[in-house]
Amino acid sequence: MTTDYIRDGTAIYEKSFAIIRAEADLSRFGAAEAEVAVRMIHACGLVEAADAFVFSPGFVAAARAALGRGAPILCDAEMVAHGITRARLPAANEVVCTLRDPRTPELAASMGNTRSAAALELWRGRLEGALVAIGNAPTALFHLLDMIEAGAPRPAAIVGMPVGFVGAAESKEALAEGRHGIPFATVRGRMGGSALAAAAVNALARAGL
Amino acid sequence: MTTDYIRDGTAIYEKSFAIIRAEADLSRFGAAEAEVAVRMIHACGLVEAADAFVFSPGFVAAARAALGRGAPILCDAEMVAHGITRARLPAANEVVCTLRDPRTPELAASMGNTRSAAALELWRGRLEGALVAIGNAPTALFHLLDMIEAGAPRPAAIVGMPVGFVGAAESKEALAEGRHGIPFATVRGRMGGSALAAAAVNALARAGL
Repeated sequence: MTTDYIRDGTAIYEKSFAIIRAEADLSRFGAAEAEVAVRMIHACGLVEAADAFVFSPGFVAAARAALGRGAPILCDAEMVAHGITRARLPAANEVVCTLRDPRTPELAASMGNTRSAAALELWRGRLEGALVAIGNAPTALFHLLDMIEAGAPRPAAIVGMPVGFVGAAESKEALAEGRHGIPFATVRGRMGGSALAAAAVNALARAGL
Repeated sequence: MTTDYIRDGTAIYEKSFAIIRAEADLSRFGAAEAEVAVRMIHACGLVEAADAFVFSPGFVAAARAALGRGAPILCDAEMVAHGITRARLPAANEVVCTLRDPRTPELAASMGNTRSAAALELWRGRLEGALVAIGNAPTALFHLLDMIEAGAPRPAAIVGMPVGFVGAAESKEALAEGRHGIPFATVRGRMGGSALAAAAVNALARAGL
């Protein structure tokens, strides 16, 4: 005897998204933002998380345009990179994570920062017009903002959703201050993570299921 | 000018874990379970999540013994597999995800189930004594329980933490009923996910930071 459960992937997605739309308060969001929010809620299983989501004006349009132009997606963690569904990407966009690049540990030592932050130094050649997806390390988001303030090439949009108890809330508040002028999406507070960041990118990559 | 934030990875971990231990109610857990719980909380940024964690008696010991023996870690999703820190594993344990195996789509079609569930059919030769880590698909957990009930080889322990709105809570309740008699860890309700499952495995792989 086998258990009775829904076995059709598309039906599961449709039902999941319908439950989320019925339960979550998405009234603060435009239609395209709501679609991103639904996928983010789906990734964490928590409709209340939506209260902490922030999309800067023009974020969805800027991120979608970048992906359509073939912009690379620069990820701070392997989990983010592996959560992005390649088949959804509109232009076979490159998904980049430099955390395990052999140069990263030495860079981190010379900078006196984490490997997660140091890995961003290896993004410089691809940062202009890119979609950045930070889902793990607050130090990566802090360092990105410092790099941009110091004149580094400017990404087209930033998905900035590190998770945790030390620096996560603070780095996301710095992002949300928006002094950099780059469209962004974030999750205020401690929540965030690779699954949320990857879900946001997947929602941006293609509308609908 | 650069922002002032903690840049030392070990210091960040230590401070994070101290905050979690100060804020989370871990009184239901033994010392080893609490260590796993702390890493799981760290992965989701939510101390309240601990209320939903369940460890069956003997779970941590069974999982650690399996890893020490060199058991493979069988993951339902690439994100789980890529969230496991290889350097922590005690016996260079193999980390396996068969979701993208070329045989999986055809298996799914013939079974009338999701690819996530079908991928588990390719675990059969490695399932005996393995550590299973399910962090994404409820259908994978449902199918695992059906396989075991039907006489498949028995894993040493199950990290069963799918996330979502359709089947996630139900599949985890079925796991927690424990009819299978295999030690397990789970998160009741909708919450769960690759980051939680990977964090649990990382905590099991090695005690401490």
